[in-house]
Amino acid sequence: MSLIVQKFGGSSVANAERVMNVAKIVTDTYKQGNDVVVVVSAQGDTTDDLIAKAKEINPNGSKREMDMLLSSGEQISIALLAMAIQSLGYPAVSLLGWQAGFSTNSVYSAARIKTIHKERLKTELSERKIVVVAGFQGINSKDNITTLGRGGSDTSAVAIAAALHADKCQIFTDVDGVYTADPRKVKNAKKLKEITYDEMLELATLGAQVLNNRSVEMAKKYNVELEVISSLNPIPGTIVKEVTKMEKMLVRGVTKDTQVARISLIGLDDIPGVAFKIFSKLASKNINVDIILQSVGRNETKDIAFTVSKDNADLAIESLRELPFVGEDIEIKCDTNVAKVSVVGAGMETHPGTASTMFEALYNNDINIQMIATSEIKISVLIDIKDADKAVEAVHEAFLG
Amino acid sequence: MSLIVQKFGGSSVANAERVMNVAKIVTDTYKQGNDVVVVVSAQGDTTDDLIAKAKEINPNGSKREMDMLLSSGEQISIALLAMAIQSLGYPAVSLLGWQAGFSTNSVYSAARIKTIHKERLKTELSERKIVVVAGFQGINSKDNITTLGRGGSDTSAVAIAAALHADKCQIFTDVDGVYTADPRKVKNAKKLKEITYDEMLELATLGAQVLNNRSVEMAKKYNVELEVISSLNPIPGTIVKEVTKMEKMLVRGVTKDTQVARISLIGLDDIPGVAFKIFSKLASKNINVDIILQSVGRNETKDIAFTVSKDNADLAIESLRELPFVGEDIEIKCDTNVAKVSVVGAGMETHPGTASTMFEALYNNDINIQMIATSEIKISVLIDIKDADKAVEAVHEAFLG
Repeated sequence: MSLIVQKFGGSSVANAERVMNVAKIVTDTYKQGNDVVVVVSAQGDTTDDLIAKAKEINPNGSKREMDMLLSSGEQISIALLAMAIQSLGYPAVSLLGWQAGFSTNSVYSAARIKTIHKERLKTELSERKIVVVAGFQGINSKDNITTLGRGGSDTSAVAIAAALHADKCQIFTDVDGVYTADPRKVKNAKKLKEITYDEMLELATLGAQVLNNRSVEMAKKYNVELEVISSLNPIPGTIVKEVTKMEKMLVRGVTKDTQVARISLIGLDDIPGVAFKIFSKLASKNINVDIILQSVGRNETKDIAFTVSKDNADLAIESLRELPFVGEDIEIKCDTNVAKVSVVGAGMETHPGTASTMFEALYNNDINIQMIATSEIKISVLIDIKDADKAVEAVHEAFLG
Repeated sequence: MSLIVQKFGGSSVANAERVMNVAKIVTDTYKQGNDVVVVVSAQGDTTDDLIAKAKEINPNGSKREMDMLLSSGEQISIALLAMAIQSLGYPAVSLLGWQAGFSTNSVYSAARIKTIHKERLKTELSERKIVVVAGFQGINSKDNITTLGRGGSDTSAVAIAAALHADKCQIFTDVDGVYTADPRKVKNAKKLKEITYDEMLELATLGAQVLNNRSVEMAKKYNVELEVISSLNPIPGTIVKEVTKMEKMLVRGVTKDTQVARISLIGLDDIPGVAFKIFSKLASKNINVDIILQSVGRNETKDIAFTVSKDNADLAIESLRELPFVGEDIEIKCDTNVAKVSVVGAGMETHPGTASTMFEALYNNDINIQMIATSEIKISVLIDIKDADKAVEAVHEAFLG
């Protein structure tokens, strides 16, 4: 008998029919003799609807009250799923974050899980109940409700799997696994049977949008075996785990990210500390910077360019203007017509030919590279957004075609 | 400085505009230097919508899960109201039933409050926050969410007022007080400045639909001064408290209840224990019986008639048929075209003329009396439903015109 944690997102429980579908999957797993903990998100658009209600009353309500409001969404879905499981003749009990023992810090709307008090979960499982847990939420040390922020339900599921030493944590989504590229765009895209945590982290960061990053980091830390699997198509998905023996395939996937903007500062004085001050300013505003390019310009000036997410572009520019050395003579350019295309694979670092294969594929397709960034397991290039799909296709063909 | 508990029902917080209106009332009270605890119900039709969602998935979901589901309704309204108060520039904190310390028994969907752990409420008030509490809900000894059943938010408000020894508990509704009769139907209906708990209990039971009975019982037990007051019309309402000196007015109000059915058993054997067995059978099914009439019929048989609420009529008949002495020769009649009209007043018992005044008023209007019941502070008659409004008008005119 195994203990399996299953997580279902908002679209998987959007209406009565889908809730029944989830109940079917869960009870099928339970029938095979497994203990099952199910983590669910709020139904469909519930969270957006609640946010709209709040904005109408107060666009700047406290984050504590927003968390109080939003956490009601999962409360509805866990109760409905528990009732759906009961309607199939199986015992179920729903638990809110605080009932399931989720203890977090006090950063409302982006709380971190500190620990899970396992007693209640263990008691319910020992009575052979299917335990339905509200994802995305917990309580802080003062008994106030907190939420874990974007993708929080994935994190909730992995945290439970880690705490209970579950045999597997299945993340059900609307795709049937992790692909070497977006299968809607690249016809030769292949589904991966296995992938390492680090590779998955790069793919998640790079816009594969399958798994939330924090949940993968946590799975890696506690060595929780993840499976990305479809809630509509009952075939094996992709397993995310520490693979000791590398497979032959060097590159795991090719991704694009179009939610990126390039910001350039032109004509900065070429004196020490400029770059440091720019990037610590951005860090102080919680703006993540990705690819960075610094070039010495003419007349003892230099240019600095970097990428941020499109959401953060305006805030980044505003913050830069607060710096004393970014006067009116310094031009700040912002280009949102860019895309980041990346290849990811854990074996890459030992194969120096990867970069040249990628650049050749782009060159053969007349695609101009604006910026380059590399890490142990990925190579990213910034290109014009209009070339993004063509670039993914070409690079995928070169490595995985 | 006083401590005031204010309760607002679902229609008072049905949309953003009304939530802001409530925030205005609450902050006006706070501005005058008072400590304020606000108890709110779920917005408008939220509870009905949630019930519909549940029924679609499982018409027989466990009551525990129904309570989990329904309690999300107040969670939404408390968060929105707290944000509305914040938007007016005042400090507010919302608390769920369990956070506010509501400890109940385990009768899901109709739980009774056992105690209120006051620490959290006191702490928040000591920081001069306006405390917004979710009505209708609590937790049992195993940390499961319970709901208090119909009208539960009134009970929550009174319970907090009792626990904190509040100076007043204001129940805001869509009427501006308690009237001697329904002011939409009886043109001479007068608003009462004051009324005793017992009178209010009789009026509530008899269909005045202003205050939930359990809340009035609790207010009486803990001597909490209640005020029934309009959330839309800022004028003084009706105070419910123990009045020591009786006012001159003998009768406090005239009410009608059309949600009543008369059930008659015709031709029972006239042997001892028949009535006892009938009414203990109904009690075992939790069916409340009101007016009872027993008459000896012909040929050593007798007839028994009584009234129940329309909702319970089918169940009552079904239960009666289970009794061994209610064979096929016993006719069971059910009449739902009846109404109960009552006069209520605490001074009534010492004035023997009340009954005759009432009967005379009915006689003068050609209204036939089917059944009569009296208590220390009320006289009720059962009449044809078509005469109900005319009867209320006539009786009101006789006592209060």
